[in-house]
Parts: sequence; structure tokens; C-alpha cells
Amino acid sequence: MRYLDAGVDLSRKEDSLARIRERVSATRRPEVIGDIGAFGGLFQLTGTDTVLVATADGVGTKVELARMLDRHEGVGTDLVHLCANDALAMGAEPLFFLDYFSTSGLDPDVFSRVVGAMADACRAIGCALLGGETAQMPGMYKDGAYDLAGFLVGGVRRDRLLDPAAVRDGDVLIGLTSSGLHTNGFSLARAIVSTRAAVEERDDRATLEAPRPELGGGTLADALLAVHRCYLDDVRALRSAATVRSIAHLTGGGWEGNLPRALPDGLGAAVDRDTWTVPPLFRLLAEWGGVADAEAFDTWNMGIGLIAVVDPADERAALGALADGTAIGRVEPSRGERRVRFA
Amino acid sequence: MRYLDAGVDLSRKEDSLARIRERVSATRRPEVIGDIGAFGGLFQLTGTDTVLVATADGVGTKVELARMLDRHEGVGTDLVHLCANDALAMGAEPLFFLDYFSTSGLDPDVFSRVVGAMADACRAIGCALLGGETAQMPGMYKDGAYDLAGFLVGGVRRDRLLDPAAVRDGDVLIGLTSSGLHTNGFSLARAIVSTRAAVEERDDRATLEAPRPELGGGTLADALLAVHRCYLDDVRALRSAATVRSIAHLTGGGWEGNLPRALPDGLGAAVDRDTWTVPPLFRLLAEWGGVADAEAFDTWNMGIGLIAVVDPADERAALGALADGTAIGRVEPSRGERRVRFA
Repeated sequence: MRYLDAGVDLSRKEDSLARIRERVSATRRPEVIGDIGAFGGLFQLTGTDTVLVATADGVGTKVELARMLDRHEGVGTDLVHLCANDALAMGAEPLFFLDYFSTSGLDPDVFSRVVGAMADACRAIGCALLGGETAQMPGMYKDGAYDLAGFLVGGVRRDRLLDPAAVRDGDVLIGLTSSGLHTNGFSLARAIVSTRAAVEERDDRATLEAPRPELGGGTLADALLAVHRCYLDDVRALRSAATVRSIAHLTGGGWEGNLPRALPDGLGAAVDRDTWTVPPLFRLLAEWGGVADAEAFDTWNMGIGLIAVVDPADERAALGALADGTAIGRVEPSRGERRVRFA
Repeated sequence: MRYLDAGVDLSRKEDSLARIRERVSATRRPEVIGDIGAFGGLFQLTGTDTVLVATADGVGTKVELARMLDRHEGVGTDLVHLCANDALAMGAEPLFFLDYFSTSGLDPDVFSRVVGAMADACRAIGCALLGGETAQMPGMYKDGAYDLAGFLVGGVRRDRLLDPAAVRDGDVLIGLTSSGLHTNGFSLARAIVSTRAAVEERDDRATLEAPRPELGGGTLADALLAVHRCYLDDVRALRSAATVRSIAHLTGGGWEGNLPRALPDGLGAAVDRDTWTVPPLFRLLAEWGGVADAEAFDTWNMGIGLIAVVDPADERAALGALADGTAIGRVEPSRGERRVRFA
């Protein structure tokens, strides 16, 4: 099974974005730094040395899973962490967040569980929840469905901004574990769960809630809804101990879709897959769905949620600063079309 | 017919927001200015006298109308203008914008028409389109449906920030005309169109595309899809000619839902309805839908899209600076529960 079979067509997304690229570029102002394609948009206000880093994101169809299982809190937290990590990938600390909650029929209980969790997550990372929009769109969503979008602005001193241009051949890649799928590849995961439910002759929910020996007796529901890990404290610790050149947050598009975003043209990454163990959740989904290895790594994070590119002289210091950091590979000259090479 | 009958329950929205208010307040940081309920969230970066004004919004089910009529460009422009006007209501000029586009099946043509129009609208008002998210959510939206959210950050010098606290009894209300419904009350308008289509024994689309003598021979489609007017140039002209105390952008919740947001506690507004003519579109919808007058003013802007509260000594200067400004009333002590009193 491929991501495409689950209804998500990444080539359509690329085509869509390509069609508007020039019109977007024409909106550039002098305060804008860098190009489209970074993890966050950069804007330096005149008269300050602070660069604002703006990110917009959504948690995808993880909301559908939350809804089926009536466990809504996690997706609110997910959204905040997702946006904060994107800002973090540019070196920024979170400043403020706004949310968009849209549904056909507004349920105040569900709303307060989702958006209340966003508020709590904002508070925990020191980010102001500055506003939001709650939209009632009769007839547009499937019954009970809701969608979320988050918008976060972070700030970083100009000389602390992370820039892939600083990356050198031979730099070390430090991987930090993910807590699960985070917020990507859920349409594929859900399609696989449905396929599996048919095999097990029960409904999707029962399949999700059955204890699984492969998951140490835990359920798929728990594993899939595990909250997107926030890497704020880890990156703070890492940057005070080591020279971090750039950071990749592994979200939509998996490894090939994200790791190159933290590298300059001409450089790629050699990743040693023996350096970490792909968690059972990913192996189970891949096995049940007959998902090819390359497809899995192009869709899911496979157990590594964030990768810091670090000066090789600081490898030991970097690892010492992290509870679960692993050297997973090196930067190398890029060969061929794909820039991430698994060894 | 009421807004509620069309599936939009504003009391549920209030209930939803009330449930999370304390948790949102707990996210406050020292840089945050003002309270929840303003047209934009305010954040003053340490070391600058610029206040950032952040807004999040959506165009509601106007997207459904755009889709039915295969006229997608306008809603992209609408979204940018809507957000820019909200920032403007706090006195801010647009700096940067991010969008969220979500759908079940991504159509690159529709996407590029919608988001391309956003880019063009950003460029026209000097706002950088700094990023965005394009979400593919298989099975979550009705076939072909898509949703939009916009996030805009504006900037204003602290001493130019508009603050309702500055408003005084006797201040004059200067109304600026709207171009139509803008982006609010579309679920009610669409429900009325459907009712009318049944009366006229044709489908919704034919009803929308029939020339109407009441609309000067134009169609409902044109009148309903008219682009949300951007008031940036008007407000610039107004502020250089007159002392503007505060501004209300008439969006969701109509007059009572928005004009009090530009007034301090204890003050209300006396509005003289003879000072402007409610455009035929609103009269037609109200008549066909049997919409009570109060309900219409609580849902739609009724021909006035933005209201500036101005020092009465500057009334003449203010009107002279505007192509279509009208003195529509005065600030007065608030009496009773409703703060907008129509005379």
C-alpha cells in the first residue's frame, strides 16, 4: 500500500505549489529573509535584531482518529508542538500562537477539550495563545468532523538563526527519537488499520483498542495517538552544549521530504539505519499494509522526529547534552536525485 | 428565518469560548497587551516600540458558494482583506500572511486559483505571503469542498495603537460602505437562496445566476461573491486627517457583535439608520428569508463594513478624507444589554 492509495497525492501538492511560486515570490518585502521551503517563514522587523519565524500547520487526519476514539485532547497538544518544532528548526523560541477550529456543527465539549489542550500546551512551552477563529460551516464537513490549523510565531536573535548554508561535508547528524507517527502519515495508517480490521473481522475501533503483544501489550490507539513530542528543551540543551548548524523536523514527506531542507544545495545525508531501532508501531503498520521500505521512510518519521546537524568536533558534547540523542549519520556530497542515502 | 436555522449557533460559540477562557488567560506573557476579544491579538517584542497585531480568520461558507459557481479567485482575496481589516481595526499595517488550505482531494487548478489570488492580494497591500500549509484530508470534507484559514501579522507603533479606552461619550461614528456581505452570514444567505430556488422552481445555481431587476439587472452570484473590501487606504487617509479613537470591523456577529468591541465598558452607540441606504442585496435576502430586522443586523453588515470612532472636532476633516464616509451616529452612555441602539 502507498500513501497515494490512501488518498494523499504528494505530487499534486508539489504541482499546486509550483503553480503559485512566482506570485508568492512577488509578495516579498525587504524584511523577509531566506526562501520558500524552510521550516518557517522569516521576517526581521526593522530596528531590531530579532527575527520572527512564522509557521502554519495542521495535524492532518489524526483528528479523525481522535474523533473515532473520542480522545480529543491530544490533537490540540499535537498542533502546538508541531508548530513549535517547526519554529525550533529555524532556531526560534515560541512567542505566540493562534488557532483555527472549523466544523459543521460546533460541540462546545469537543471544542473545549481540543482548544483547552492547545492552551495548556502553549502555557507549558511559554507561548501566548493570542487569538483564534472558531468557524461553523454547516454541511461542509462530514458529521462530527472538525479540522484544525495552527499558526505560531517564534523569535530568534539574528546571529542565532539556523541556516542550512552553514552545514559542511562531514557534519554529524544527531537524531532524537519520536513518540510515534507524530502528526504525519495518518491517512495511510488509518487505511492500513481498516484493512487489518477486515482481516481480524472486527471494526476499526475494536482493532485500534485491542492489546497487541507487538506493542508490549499496548493498543494501536495509544500508540497512534501518542502526542507529538516537543523538542524545545532538547534543542535548548543541545545548542548550549554544541554548535548546531541546522535542524530538520521530520514531518510530511518523511526523511527525503525534510532532511534535505536542513542542507545546502550539493550536500546530502548518509544515514546508518543500524544506529536506531524502528519502533514496533511502524513495523506493524508497514507489515500489515505491505508498505515498501522506501515508501515508509517517505511518509513516516520511523522513530526519529528531529535531526540536528552538528559540528563533528562537538559530537560528544552534543550527545552528552541529550537524554536520547544518537549519531545516526553524516553529511556527505549529494549524489543522484535523492539526497538521503540509507546505509 | 434565523442564522440558527441555517445551522450557525452563535450561543454555542460563546459557550465554547467561555469554557476555555481561563486556560487561555494562563498563557499570557509580559509582552501581551490588552485582553481577549479585540480584533487582533497584541504582542510587543522587547526592545522595540512596534506592537505586533495577529489575526486568524476564515471566510466561512462563502467557499461553498465559490465552489458551486466555479469562481474561486475571490475567496482567496477575501481572506487576505478580512485579516488585514482586523489588524487595521487595531491600527496596524499588514506585515506578513500565512494560509491554510485543506481539502479531501487536492485539485491543483482550484488551489492555484485560490492561493494565487491570496498572493496577488498580499502583494497589492504590501504584505509578504510568508508561508502556509496545504492539507490533504481524505474522506473528511464533502466531495470537492475545501476550507481556508488565514493568519496575518501586522505592525503598529505603540503610540499609534488604537485602543477603545480612548473613546469618549459624544464621539462620532464614521461608517464606510461594504461591498456586500463580505465574508459573513453566508450560511444564512445560502439557505435563503435554496428556499428561493424552490419558490422559483429552479436549482440554486440558476437562482444565483438569474439577472435581478432589484440588483440593477445584476445577479445574486455577483452580488454575493463581491470581494471583501479592504479598508487599508481609507484608514490611512482617515488617520492622517483626523483623530481616530478606535475602529470596528463588522464581521461575524454583525453590528452588536462588533461595534461594542471598539467601545469601552459603559459606552454604547446610537446609530441613525437614515444616514445610509441598506443595499438591495440585503433587502432582497431579508425579504425572501423573512429575516427579522434585528436578526439581519446581528448577522450581516447591512452595507457598512467598517466604522471609525472619531473625535467630534474632526468630523468634517474625517469625512473630507474619505470618498464614501458617512457620519452614522454617536457614542453615548450604554443603556440596557444591547450596546448598539438604532434610531
